[in-house]
Formats: sequence, C-alpha cells, structure tokens
Amino acid sequence: MEIKDLEKVSVIGLGLLGGSLGLALNSSFPRIKRRGYSHRAVTRNKARDLGSVDEIYPDVADAVSESQLVILASPIGTFESLMQKMAGHLPDGCIVTDVGSTKVLPVRWARKYFNRNIQFLGSHPIAGSEQRGVDFARADLFFGAPCILTPTKQTQKTTIAFLKEFWQALGMRVQTMTATEHDRVLARISHLPHLLASAMVNVSDPKELLLCGKGFLDTTRIASGPPNVWRDIIMANTKNTSVAIGKLTKELVRMQLALDQEKEKAILKMLADAQAKRNTLVAQKMKRKELPT
Amino acid sequence: MEIKDLEKVSVIGLGLLGGSLGLALNSSFPRIKRRGYSHRAVTRNKARDLGSVDEIYPDVADAVSESQLVILASPIGTFESLMQKMAGHLPDGCIVTDVGSTKVLPVRWARKYFNRNIQFLGSHPIAGSEQRGVDFARADLFFGAPCILTPTKQTQKTTIAFLKEFWQALGMRVQTMTATEHDRVLARISHLPHLLASAMVNVSDPKELLLCGKGFLDTTRIASGPPNVWRDIIMANTKNTSVAIGKLTKELVRMQLALDQEKEKAILKMLADAQAKRNTLVAQKMKRKELPT
Repeated sequence: MEIKDLEKVSVIGLGLLGGSLGLALNSSFPRIKRRGYSHRAVTRNKARDLGSVDEIYPDVADAVSESQLVILASPIGTFESLMQKMAGHLPDGCIVTDVGSTKVLPVRWARKYFNRNIQFLGSHPIAGSEQRGVDFARADLFFGAPCILTPTKQTQKTTIAFLKEFWQALGMRVQTMTATEHDRVLARISHLPHLLASAMVNVSDPKELLLCGKGFLDTTRIASGPPNVWRDIIMANTKNTSVAIGKLTKELVRMQLALDQEKEKAILKMLADAQAKRNTLVAQKMKRKELPT
Repeated sequence: MEIKDLEKVSVIGLGLLGGSLGLALNSSFPRIKRRGYSHRAVTRNKARDLGSVDEIYPDVADAVSESQLVILASPIGTFESLMQKMAGHLPDGCIVTDVGSTKVLPVRWARKYFNRNIQFLGSHPIAGSEQRGVDFARADLFFGAPCILTPTKQTQKTTIAFLKEFWQALGMRVQTMTATEHDRVLARISHLPHLLASAMVNVSDPKELLLCGKGFLDTTRIASGPPNVWRDIIMANTKNTSVAIGKLTKELVRMQLALDQEKEKAILKMLADAQAKRNTLVAQKMKRKELPT
C-alpha cells in the first residue's frame, strides 16, 4: 500500500499519544477517516468533544475492521490482549503498528497473534510528556521528534517505506534498528532517566524539597509521568534497564570516591566532560531542528 | 542599619548572578548607587554596556571601600582570597553577604578575615540557570525563589532583619537555618541532582543520545552548568554530597533488585510514590507562587 491510498486509520487508545495522533492525522492527512477506540466511556466522550478522531468505538474489533492502518497507542501492558481481540477482525493487507516505548515484546506478540496477511511493524515515536490523557493532546506532539521503526526479517520493504513516509508526514525523523537494539538503547536514554528521577524524589525529604530550585524540578519532571504506563514500559524491558542502572551506579560510586578523597581535578573533569557532551548534543538537536535555537 | 539608609552596594563578581543582582537592585532600589567588581576586563566592559551596575572597578578594595552592603557573587572558590583582599577596606559597620551555594566555608572564612566591626551573614538565593555570564543576567532572576540566611550566634539581629528585608525586596522568600544544616540540605536537593545529571550524561553513548527525547534533556539540563563553578560548590561540600550519593545509590540498587526479580508491584509503588510526592511539591510551589500555575 502507498500513502496516497490510505483512507481509513484506526487509533487504538485515546490518551495523550492516541489523542495527539488523531489531531496530527487531521492536520497531515485531512481527507483520511480517523477511527478511534477507547475502553473508557469518559475518554470516548472527551475525545469526541475534542475532535480527536472522526468515529469512536467502544469495541476494538469494530474499530479496526475496515482500516488499512491500525496504530496501538494504549499503555504497552494492554497490547497483548488488544492484539488478540483485533486479530480476527483486521482486513487482509492491513498494516499494524504501535507507539510503545519498548519493541521486543510488541514484535513477539504480533508474531503470535497476527497471520501472514497482516503486516506488523513496530514504531516508537519518541515524543510525549509527563502529562496524561486526551485533554493534553496536541497536534504537534510528534513534530520534530525522532521515530524508530523496528523491522524484522519478515517485514516487507513496502511496509517499512509506508510507515517511514507516514511518520515523516507527521514531521518525524525516522530511523530503523532491530527491536533488541531499540530496547537496549531506550533503557539507557529513557527508562534509566525515568527511574533515576523517581529515585531522587523518593530519597528526598518533603520539607527540604520546598527549598529546591528549578534544577531539581527539571531533573525530576519525568517522575510525574503516569506510574502504570511506566511500570508497563519498564516491566517490558527489565534486563536492559537493570544493566543501565548498574552502569550508572558504578559511575556514581566513582564520583563518591573522588569526593571522599577530595580529588578536585577528577571532579572537575567529570563535570567538564558532561558539560561538553551535553552541549554537543543540544547543538546537534538544534541543527536537526529537534530543539528551538 | 535599616534598608531606607542604604545608599551604596557593592556586587563582587559580575557573572549571571552578580549581573542579575545589579539589574534587580536597579529595579527594587532605583536610588541606590551600585558598585561592581570583576577581575576580567571583558566582563567589566560587558557589564558596563548592559548597565549591570553604576560604577565598575578592577580592584576589589576600591569596589568595597565606601559601601554599606557588599555582596560576594563570584564562584565560591574565589571567596577566601576576595575576603582577604577586601578585609582592610570595608567601612566600619559594613554588612557583607554572599550568594554562594554552600555556607559552612564562607562563614568560616568571614570569621577568619573580618574584624568585629564587619557583620557577615551568609545568604543563598536559590536561583540561577545552567547559563553563564553577565550576558544572561536578568532583573527577575531572584523573583519568586527561596533564599536561605545562615546566621551564627555572633550575628546581630539587626543584620538578619536587614538582609531579610533586602532579599524580600527582590521578591525572594527568605528563611534561616544554620550553615551546617544548609549544606546538608543543599547537598541533597541541589549538589546531588547536579552530579547525577553529569553522571547520566557521562555514561551515555553520544550516538544513542541523538535519539533522546525531552525527558533526557530536562533530566540533564543542569549538567550544562559551568564546571568550575560547580567544582567549587561540590568541593566545598564533599562530605554531605558523598552521603547523599550513597543514599541515592542504595535506592537505585533497590530498584535494580526489583527489576531483576520482576517485582512489578514494587516497581509500580516506587513510580507511584515518586509521582505523588513530586506532584505535591509542584502544587505547593505553585501555591507559593514560586512556579507558574
């Protein structure tokens, strides 16, 4: 299938990501029929009021039955059951993807539940915020952010090309890697920072925290993200995340030793290395227009 | 001395904090003569162009000689030498304070170099950013932020009242504690987050980092702060910071164990506890108008 033939898209789950996806679809593909599913009546009503999608279904089988593209945008912990429920109702040739933050398990589940006439290709648009729910949905949530596709040996080239073009139309910078590599990388650049932010809040004294500055608030912003969503993500990537924590802990112990031995030059080097490395990253992100200059 | 009698103030060091202080003084006390010192000609010229202060001196003795209030706003590593240089030139009755991020050492140095006719009282306005230099100075940098005063048994009540009123006039929420308590608290809410942000950048692969989202960038923002300033801060508070790292590392090891044992409920609890605690903090900060609602 080519993008120009796309007429009906289903968005499964209408929270921050699904709701934003609906709005983004409307802006990038105004003629497409957007079909949405949510298991909660409150969400369905809100999504209807906000114009997140064109049609809303309380049943996932109904929501997918006529679509050429189906996008799972619910918490990853719901994927397996949703895939199982939709499997028999997907039209032949349908492309299914997801926006989950881990990719090994979604790929495995898709292989388990979908037949050969369904093309599953995992996507991870690296966009979002600590906010939750369709109320915070924004048409530009995906714009300028990276998106990773995780094809397998079974994935057709046309499917890769289709989804690449699809996410690019939403303003994303698309690249591909294996699901295994994706999960290892994301453990380090996303799941670790999340747990770290949570750990820092957890060890803090609430009274002392009132004295904190913007630095602490920024460092811990993501700890305000929805716990069940993040539990699902982290539980789908426990081994990689554990390894990442181990690596970080080692670096912290190294810092602690430098402090205990009053090694001023070592401390300066750690701070200077981090500054240089982060400033390079920020400059690169600005050049790629993923950050405002 | 009372605030209404304040005619001449010296700001020692004209970087982000000193420059902002000069601008804030102009806005809160428009009739006061603002006298500035910087050891760098480049900074003196920029500060002159930006109107950071009214008079600029390349010699610290000249900069303080007629002032009723002297505020050290240079990196903490320069304090001891500056105090030593200014000591013989401060007018009797002069109040000296600083904006340093640790307080035990400044208090100790002041006791060492200043005679009884000089009242030193440490201040820590908890404001700033990862940016550096007088170019980033802002008149509202201190507005709505907390400020800690660290009096000793020798501090006169009139000095405490004077500085309290002074910082409040700049829009700060002032509270007092001992220098020892201050340094212990700040290790946990400021120096630890800084090292953590640096550690996370240091263990990351630069190529992988290009895929990071806003979460990673926020979590590590403070790692872009000036390394020499932060080395000074951390070297002035090594013991407390080491203890704080130890406490955090313990929490991380606990998380790692929960991951290794696939303890879903324990992970959810850690995430939910952190979310609830941080959301409470944000709500309190909003109520106190330290954050926009």
